[in-house]
Amino acid sequence: MLEEKNPQRTAISTLGEVGLIKHLTDALPTIQPSTVLGVGDDAAVLEVGTGQMVVSTDTLAEGVHFNLGYVPLKHLGYKAVVVNLSDIASMNAVPSQILVSIAVSNRFPVEALEEIYQGIRLACQHYGVDLVGGDTTSSTSGLILTITAIGAVEKGKFIARKGAKEGDLLVVTGDLGGAYMGLQILEREHAVYLANPQMQPEMEGYEYILQRQLKPEARTDVRTALEQLEIVPTSMVDISDGLASEVLHLSDQSQVGIRVYEDKIPLDPQTLSTAEEFNLNPTVCALSGGEDYELLFTISPSDYQKIKNHPDFTVIGHVVEKQQGSHLVLSGSGELSPLTAQGWDAFLNRE
Amino acid sequence: MLEEKNPQRTAISTLGEVGLIKHLTDALPTIQPSTVLGVGDDAAVLEVGTGQMVVSTDTLAEGVHFNLGYVPLKHLGYKAVVVNLSDIASMNAVPSQILVSIAVSNRFPVEALEEIYQGIRLACQHYGVDLVGGDTTSSTSGLILTITAIGAVEKGKFIARKGAKEGDLLVVTGDLGGAYMGLQILEREHAVYLANPQMQPEMEGYEYILQRQLKPEARTDVRTALEQLEIVPTSMVDISDGLASEVLHLSDQSQVGIRVYEDKIPLDPQTLSTAEEFNLNPTVCALSGGEDYELLFTISPSDYQKIKNHPDFTVIGHVVEKQQGSHLVLSGSGELSPLTAQGWDAFLNRE
Repeated sequence: MLEEKNPQRTAISTLGEVGLIKHLTDALPTIQPSTVLGVGDDAAVLEVGTGQMVVSTDTLAEGVHFNLGYVPLKHLGYKAVVVNLSDIASMNAVPSQILVSIAVSNRFPVEALEEIYQGIRLACQHYGVDLVGGDTTSSTSGLILTITAIGAVEKGKFIARKGAKEGDLLVVTGDLGGAYMGLQILEREHAVYLANPQMQPEMEGYEYILQRQLKPEARTDVRTALEQLEIVPTSMVDISDGLASEVLHLSDQSQVGIRVYEDKIPLDPQTLSTAEEFNLNPTVCALSGGEDYELLFTISPSDYQKIKNHPDFTVIGHVVEKQQGSHLVLSGSGELSPLTAQGWDAFLNRE
Repeated sequence: MLEEKNPQRTAISTLGEVGLIKHLTDALPTIQPSTVLGVGDDAAVLEVGTGQMVVSTDTLAEGVHFNLGYVPLKHLGYKAVVVNLSDIASMNAVPSQILVSIAVSNRFPVEALEEIYQGIRLACQHYGVDLVGGDTTSSTSGLILTITAIGAVEKGKFIARKGAKEGDLLVVTGDLGGAYMGLQILEREHAVYLANPQMQPEMEGYEYILQRQLKPEARTDVRTALEQLEIVPTSMVDISDGLASEVLHLSDQSQVGIRVYEDKIPLDPQTLSTAEEFNLNPTVCALSGGEDYELLFTISPSDYQKIKNHPDFTVIGHVVEKQQGSHLVLSGSGELSPLTAQGWDAFLNRE
């Protein structure tokens, strides 16, 4: 038992995060009659009594998902909750409870944990969810937050990634790319600070994109808005890893192709001007930046009239047959550029 | 935002794991009508439709809860599931689903994760639970496994830590201290191996206690056994941190005192002989060793006849009024020794 084998070694980065989970959980059949939807969506759907619930878990790791050099602990706690509530919202469910696991090294004092929990409490209050379970343990290094979120949904009313049909319209909430541009500002100012701790960080004029990065919100309001418009999306996902990656989730699981029109992607003026400042293509920021936590969904074309003038919803594309694949339709030329899952990947980014 | 404050620093170890969670989650009121039982028990109880469910989360961290020098990855995966199912069983619920979060550094190849998942799958098959969610992310160092377990329970049939009454009998399943003695053997043989890699580890004659440490089982069978005996425990907890710590959980939450009789604590002959070999007091191993994952519960004295001859249940004490406190009644002398929460503590052990 104590002997070391000399096993085959495949680097995790060769599979990437999505590929890895697929690889590890493939061929794992579910047997419980209460399991309605298992691995592979934003959340699992379970049947309990006459109701259904959705449950999802997500981890934020220091040095991978956040840098404590410029992310305040309170914001980190808030964001860790939001990231998980976003998964619940993307299933069309109402978040109700969370459980929090924190693994933390002894270099963190109790006060650091209190700050994290202040952020967690604030998020619980803001979204009206209960913290019902906690586990705090030490780790050999670093800080790792794992949150499990639970939500309720009327039986059969959950919306999965699967369900988009040819002809459906692709709709996104809010605007994209802001969280990524906020990260660029934080990283730049942190580098300046490290070089010269006397320098004051320049944050003015970047308030919106900094908020998108440091204090994102989960779109738990979209469920009600859609209900009022009498729209039932055919598929839905939240944008955690960038638009491109999420479009591919919808097309993969729905067995369709999707076209996204570059000139329709909603971008905030601050995102645009900051992208220009950094000499970055704002479309790439929206496609690959991630962490916007907006919702992306498909609707029947017959619902177009109901949604077309809504200030918070933007129709950015449509669903085509699977054989056509998923593409970005470039502004101006109208050329088709294949969408690839170049969304932010925790393993690739650490190479 | 980038400035470092110079905050008060309280070492986490001054509070301990239980104290820390209490401190962080204190005064966090629950507002959701579906939250039946929040932080402070083995699992939370939620109401969904006409049913109830229990949910619990637990983390195992490398270097704190396990040492990969002598814990095979497959066993680690299996044990991580068992630890969580044990929490569900201790609520008198039937485990149905799990979600798995793994944070892992790039030093682990894909094959290592496959081995962990092999153990996870095996546990899922053995206990008939579904893996319904997964998150795998990189960490800056080490391996951290967080599992959330979900179980179903008939409305109002869950059993909490609160509920023990004066006069009740204290009952434990199986035997105690074995997992701790198994750990002593693993640590000894690992030290021998490090000193001389040519030495073969001596594991013969320690099979039972090694299994208790490396491949523990969750007592999901107890619910049915008690049902058949027509016994409804008044309070219940699983033994993850040692008998002493769990007795104090029951007495704290039930607002009672508890007496445990030293000579009644069930110990396996292998635990006894190995304790002797290591010059350890076997009672201390049972009280403070932890990781036995047996169930500890209280029953009404009127149920004594039903349970007294059951080979798997041992009556080890009884409940007294709160003012009397909780004590171990020493063999021979009959002296009372106060029970303290010297159960295995992740933070204290790392000092």
